[in-house]
Amino acid sequence: MMTETERLMACVDGRRLWRRHMRMAEHGGTENGGVNRQALSEADFAARRQLIRWGQDVGLSPYRDDAGNLFLRMQGSDPQAEPVLTGSHLDSQPTGGRFDGAYGVLAGLEALQALTEAGLRCRRPIELAVWMNEEGSRFAPGMMGSRVFAGQDTVAGISSVRDADGIPVAQELERLDGLFADVPRVPPGRKAHAYLEAHIEQGPILERQSTAIGVVTGIQGKYTYLVEFRGQEAHVGTVDLAERKDALLAAVAAIDAMAAEFLGTANGTRFSVCRLNVTPNVPSVIARKAEFSIDLRHPDSGELGRLHRRVEEICRAHAGPCEVSVNRLSAADSLEFPVQLRELVRQCASELSMTHIDILSLAGHDARYLHRVCPSGMIFIPCKDGVSHNEAESVRAEDLENGVRVLAAALRRLAA
Amino acid sequence: MMTETERLMACVDGRRLWRRHMRMAEHGGTENGGVNRQALSEADFAARRQLIRWGQDVGLSPYRDDAGNLFLRMQGSDPQAEPVLTGSHLDSQPTGGRFDGAYGVLAGLEALQALTEAGLRCRRPIELAVWMNEEGSRFAPGMMGSRVFAGQDTVAGISSVRDADGIPVAQELERLDGLFADVPRVPPGRKAHAYLEAHIEQGPILERQSTAIGVVTGIQGKYTYLVEFRGQEAHVGTVDLAERKDALLAAVAAIDAMAAEFLGTANGTRFSVCRLNVTPNVPSVIARKAEFSIDLRHPDSGELGRLHRRVEEICRAHAGPCEVSVNRLSAADSLEFPVQLRELVRQCASELSMTHIDILSLAGHDARYLHRVCPSGMIFIPCKDGVSHNEAESVRAEDLENGVRVLAAALRRLAA
Repeated sequence: MMTETERLMACVDGRRLWRRHMRMAEHGGTENGGVNRQALSEADFAARRQLIRWGQDVGLSPYRDDAGNLFLRMQGSDPQAEPVLTGSHLDSQPTGGRFDGAYGVLAGLEALQALTEAGLRCRRPIELAVWMNEEGSRFAPGMMGSRVFAGQDTVAGISSVRDADGIPVAQELERLDGLFADVPRVPPGRKAHAYLEAHIEQGPILERQSTAIGVVTGIQGKYTYLVEFRGQEAHVGTVDLAERKDALLAAVAAIDAMAAEFLGTANGTRFSVCRLNVTPNVPSVIARKAEFSIDLRHPDSGELGRLHRRVEEICRAHAGPCEVSVNRLSAADSLEFPVQLRELVRQCASELSMTHIDILSLAGHDARYLHRVCPSGMIFIPCKDGVSHNEAESVRAEDLENGVRVLAAALRRLAA
Repeated sequence: MMTETERLMACVDGRRLWRRHMRMAEHGGTENGGVNRQALSEADFAARRQLIRWGQDVGLSPYRDDAGNLFLRMQGSDPQAEPVLTGSHLDSQPTGGRFDGAYGVLAGLEALQALTEAGLRCRRPIELAVWMNEEGSRFAPGMMGSRVFAGQDTVAGISSVRDADGIPVAQELERLDGLFADVPRVPPGRKAHAYLEAHIEQGPILERQSTAIGVVTGIQGKYTYLVEFRGQEAHVGTVDLAERKDALLAAVAAIDAMAAEFLGTANGTRFSVCRLNVTPNVPSVIARKAEFSIDLRHPDSGELGRLHRRVEEICRAHAGPCEVSVNRLSAADSLEFPVQLRELVRQCASELSMTHIDILSLAGHDARYLHRVCPSGMIFIPCKDGVSHNEAESVRAEDLENGVRVLAAALRRLAA
């Protein structure tokens, strides 16, 4: 006779999981095989509708909250019990991959379907969550939905954030409200028993070590900045160098100096400047404004604080005749997930005879905010060459399936 | 009894000249008192129409050529004589001023009107030219109309150049053709006796020396480049520094290194990077492409050649794991205007009791290309604080008038 776990595992369908990934990737699919599914865009709405259909076919009940988060609920036998949450996000970078975020959502759906098909009724409800705007590429900063869910921001607070075309979050939330009028809506935030998120590693460690499962120990700290240098427009040919206020040259000097200082040491600092906008940005007028984003990460919160002071000092030191403002947009210190959840994931992987290692998440995830709501944890699976935030992102079908198996087993224990 | 020069000067009307500048500045006028009159835009077309009306009121005959240049012709007594040309451009930078270019056109109009009103019939025809797209901010590179007029490019050659919205020059030339069907059209290029262009200095020298007139000795050499660094998109949090191919960091390092080397010496090098575009330009994806323009100028052509080699070397030296391509878009060596024209301007200024000095043009002008067609020269007037390519550009009415007086006297001698 089969054990409960064997029954559950017999119902995990790796081919169905793969097919759903490929189908989901059509929403916002790019010519190069990647995904451009911006938060609260048409493609995002279509992806949500697709997920709701799949969930309803399995008997899950959809509802949503005022912050644009979507939930699919599997009822438990005890209506009073706090739910177990799982999930991730469906939005992507402009040239993103098919698995970043989508995997955590589709893994959760597959786990819930397997639990249902195996006839394993749980005491607690389990809810599959789709967090609104994790990436922050259209509306910055990201993790908007999970941040509001965790009470770290409000719907009013995120409503006025605008995209590059000037469209505010409020307007797109209103569109979502109209398109999903059939899905019940509740205020954001609630108590939960636990949160477990599956995700691709987005780094090369698991693949290099030929390991199936990463037991995520925590998330490294991350500060983000918007730095603006302001100079003066002038004719490039005529104005004396001594009299120029060249905002672009000042910004370039500051970025180059920060890169030299922060990246020269092998102490784990990750410093990135990926977005830079120049005004007026024409070949023969000295820039009056150069504005750039900084993404600064370090596993140690104390070191992150020291780096923060250096960012301000270096930017000021290179302003020359320009003015500079350094605005920190977000400051998330390093966090460690509770030991019990990590141990649960470890046990499930071991019992399923899967190789696993402890791993620190170098990327940010919605679990960062859920960590403030309830005991939270994450399960990582390998991705090809560690490539992510790239249309070439790729994951093996067997790795997708391994992660779901561990997730399903862990959800069962959390909810039973 | 008045001399001929006294009669001519009595007809130069400084207030009319000022009013026309203010009226012209309304075409493409900005909130901040500047001008955004892009080449072949609605504002440019409206400015041309305005000029044609003013010219016709004074008895000038408009015609145009296939390259989008506009001419207003004052007949001479000898129909066989090659014309004397004067003029400049009506297009502007996106946040440009009211006098850059417009002054040379309106100064020419005022000079021709004064000659007419003074009853001074000339042997040679005098033609007021409006050269298409001098600035090159919408369609790069600039001096398009004068370049074709001088046979250094063809209408077919410029037709395929596109603006940032993908609109080609050909399409806008067609619109111009439809809107100005009433103005006769000829092929570009013709012989001319001489060309004399009035312009604001766009630098601080004349103002500092309290000098009315700059006798332009020549134009410093200018090379322009488009440099592209190509890397690979990746997640900013997870990918090891050693494995990144960060196109933006490589570009920043190259720009900073060039600035340090070229701007550290006091040998007259002008190195500017004013336009930089990043792809995908979002906060948390390593840039796969960073593309920037270089504007490099030096009075000495030999030194410019040496700097050219260093641009290529430094960009390659900082590519790291990225690929780099350095494309030179234009290479104009330094030029010296013929002594006779410079002496003519000097004499006219002296006879009108105006202070004058010799001055090298650090900016490029259409006269660079007319220099290849016929003996050419330029007259500079002071502008406030040397500010140009800026909405705050400002010129005193008396300086505008001084320049017209010298221009009118010189045109009279060239055409008589």
